[in-house]
Amino acid sequence: MWKPDRQSNKPLYEQIADYLEQRISYGEFPPGSLLPSERKLAEQLGVNRSTIIQAFAELRSFGIIESRTGSGTRVSRTKWGATPKHTPNWKRYAEGGSFLPNPPFMRKIREALTDQPSRIDFASGELAADLAPMDEIASLMSAHHYTSYLGYDNPQGYVPLRETLVSYLKRYRSIQTSESSILITSGSQQSLYLITQCLLSPGDAVAIEDPSYCYSLPMFQSAGLRLFRLPVDQHGIRPDDIRTLYKKHRIKMVFLNPNYQNPTGTVLADERREQLLEVASELALPIVEDDPFSLTAYEGNPPAPLKSLDTVGSVLYIGSFSKVAASGLRIGWMVAPRSIVERLADARQQMDFGLSIIPQQVAAQFLKSSHFEPHLERLRIQLQFKRDLLIDTLRKELHDSVIYDIPHGGLHLWCKLLPDVNDGKLLDEAIRRGVVFVPGSVYGSDSSFVRFTFARAKNDEIEPGISRFAEALRSLTSINS
Amino acid sequence: MWKPDRQSNKPLYEQIADYLEQRISYGEFPPGSLLPSERKLAEQLGVNRSTIIQAFAELRSFGIIESRTGSGTRVSRTKWGATPKHTPNWKRYAEGGSFLPNPPFMRKIREALTDQPSRIDFASGELAADLAPMDEIASLMSAHHYTSYLGYDNPQGYVPLRETLVSYLKRYRSIQTSESSILITSGSQQSLYLITQCLLSPGDAVAIEDPSYCYSLPMFQSAGLRLFRLPVDQHGIRPDDIRTLYKKHRIKMVFLNPNYQNPTGTVLADERREQLLEVASELALPIVEDDPFSLTAYEGNPPAPLKSLDTVGSVLYIGSFSKVAASGLRIGWMVAPRSIVERLADARQQMDFGLSIIPQQVAAQFLKSSHFEPHLERLRIQLQFKRDLLIDTLRKELHDSVIYDIPHGGLHLWCKLLPDVNDGKLLDEAIRRGVVFVPGSVYGSDSSFVRFTFARAKNDEIEPGISRFAEALRSLTSINS
Repeated sequence: MWKPDRQSNKPLYEQIADYLEQRISYGEFPPGSLLPSERKLAEQLGVNRSTIIQAFAELRSFGIIESRTGSGTRVSRTKWGATPKHTPNWKRYAEGGSFLPNPPFMRKIREALTDQPSRIDFASGELAADLAPMDEIASLMSAHHYTSYLGYDNPQGYVPLRETLVSYLKRYRSIQTSESSILITSGSQQSLYLITQCLLSPGDAVAIEDPSYCYSLPMFQSAGLRLFRLPVDQHGIRPDDIRTLYKKHRIKMVFLNPNYQNPTGTVLADERREQLLEVASELALPIVEDDPFSLTAYEGNPPAPLKSLDTVGSVLYIGSFSKVAASGLRIGWMVAPRSIVERLADARQQMDFGLSIIPQQVAAQFLKSSHFEPHLERLRIQLQFKRDLLIDTLRKELHDSVIYDIPHGGLHLWCKLLPDVNDGKLLDEAIRRGVVFVPGSVYGSDSSFVRFTFARAKNDEIEPGISRFAEALRSLTSINS
Repeated sequence: MWKPDRQSNKPLYEQIADYLEQRISYGEFPPGSLLPSERKLAEQLGVNRSTIIQAFAELRSFGIIESRTGSGTRVSRTKWGATPKHTPNWKRYAEGGSFLPNPPFMRKIREALTDQPSRIDFASGELAADLAPMDEIASLMSAHHYTSYLGYDNPQGYVPLRETLVSYLKRYRSIQTSESSILITSGSQQSLYLITQCLLSPGDAVAIEDPSYCYSLPMFQSAGLRLFRLPVDQHGIRPDDIRTLYKKHRIKMVFLNPNYQNPTGTVLADERREQLLEVASELALPIVEDDPFSLTAYEGNPPAPLKSLDTVGSVLYIGSFSKVAASGLRIGWMVAPRSIVERLADARQQMDFGLSIIPQQVAAQFLKSSHFEPHLERLRIQLQFKRDLLIDTLRKELHDSVIYDIPHGGLHLWCKLLPDVNDGKLLDEAIRRGVVFVPGSVYGSDSSFVRFTFARAKNDEIEPGISRFAEALRSLTSINS
């Protein structure tokens, strides 16, 4: 007779519920018939009675069986009429699949912002509505006739956008490339996703910064990658650490965000960039350079990307429109060897059949337009203003309780809280008070860190937001106001 | 000493090339130094000499080593200067990853159309430029101010589009739903991708139609699913086959395209729909209903979807704009229980952070506009015209050599070729003559079938296209012109 499989990942009670459901559906227990008692089933299947109770509860919740005190458990008559009918166990399907869900903190933040959009948002890594070039984009959209042909796009992305990016990358990032080496993706997120899915295999070791945005991305775990840490100090990661990790774990790829790193705001020091490229070429190790923030450099002149110094061809370069124009366009790009671009474009066809042409047309027009430069200048000034406002308020509200390095680009301030506090509880208290931030542990740090995004909130929200955050912190610790 | 791993999936020569490369990169063999001979290495590593020859060839192709007749194999001096430098083995990265590439036929077709866009396209499953509502969309885009806020979108998709789809689904597909049960995806492709990645686990068995579009999608194999066939006859699949597969393989899900099935054009018969839903509810088995073609029904009044008859909640319903308006908008949707919608929306955030808002706004406006109905009417008339033109030409050119059922909706004609011919060779001959189609084996059929898409070609291309196809067929068989 059937027994549950104790080696299986599936809990015993689920296996038993499935087994009973199947026997019922085959008509072995007709509607209204009595099931064996909990005690008897437990004996037969060699499990605890509590496991059978759980399995019955599961079947009851689907209306498959009914229990009445004193008269045992019967197959439901209403649900199982002449032909037994039932709904797929959708909950169990939703829990299946090899792709992991977002970390609980990220889901909690999203829910907090969806339930009550009036909450002050220091969590979403994007620009406020008044920083994005809405009017410019609207005027471009009404001025141009965009829809010449709305068929499936070229698998690598819209050719005129790629051509525009060739000039853009040369002018703003000192990168020499051609349109055939560019893949347009849905933000940098899709570039990272394609790399983890298509260039790496389960079990491969990769190195990422610590702290890092990558820790917040279950895509790395979903792809079965083993993650190793490269600690970030004031000047970024230490290239020698890569050599050590390579010797120890034979890492296959390194993921870096060298300019205004997310979350720390750090810029990788010049001499380390050189060392890093030497190590990469010595080990034939690919570097993925994620570079979304450079054009936000508040004083202009952002550091050049690694890719511009990469004579050996070690670097996959990723850029995006999300942090400098509008995340809602969903336009990012990757510069990579042709074999890589073709492989990823081919795989992406399977996943979503490519991007819509319209936002790509808008992005190309905007980049080429006379709006782009003035937009960038305004953006830099306003981001710096928001950064200063956040820092002033933190000084006022939390003077001795928080330390940070002042970033010179990007959208975020990374803070260490001096009082010992659980960042999960702190998030709950903050949400209750109408303000949301990202706990440091999302980025792999210990729980005394927080990331504040100052770009997303309106100017007049920053003071009340920090003041509510300070209240939340005070409610959990003994600091004074 | 190190030995290659004979259990590994990696070929021996690659393992050896990697090993040598690593030793060279560590400086164990400095630039210019002599490597051990092929014979000696073969002995040391316990492999055939031919394996070492392959490994050396690989290293030579990257410029890592150099061989000269009579003087053995040396570490390259030019490539490995004072500090040895080298480029990551991108080719090998491109071949890695668990996500499989598109089938060779599909890549060949894409290349044929990219290299020479003047080729007549009976392969791409999309509308011709003159069938898509370009002018309507252009006028909507310039009339509306779309960019109210261009931040990241709601994970389930743009709310006003989902609200519009609630009315659309009720009116055109007799489906009662709410905006919270709808997920907007990048065409139906992304809906299918999310289902295979997030609701099913490697090793799960699923049933698909035979022939089926699904066979052309490596996403099923990439997700590690076991595929079982439901043969399609003139009236679609036979529901009893599902019961048989369930008993034998415990299938977890069924993928169907009941209306104007791709590629056969078949409509699932009414009595089979009822039986199918009975089987599904009996077995608590989810049905994925892909329904992209219904609104093309040439005589109007398309069959109702399974979802509209689904009282038990067995059906995940997928729709799309691609085949009735414009594939380049990349707008599809899924109607599913909330637990499923939320799970898939969460996963999609990881993959691409959601869709651009702009095409979603355009789609919502278009659906609500007075343009939509007249567009559909025009589309139906023109598709029917193209179908008739294709069939007339086939009769003229290939009278006795081809048989087919006449479809009453959709974009495709599915043909059986009577002469015995290899469909791969036939595709090559057709491409040489400037016409492209999809070989039947892409859909899991034997090689005497072809799918012609008549929607994509211009009216005046259909005759010359079929005439070139007939020439290609004649070049390989003994049929008369």
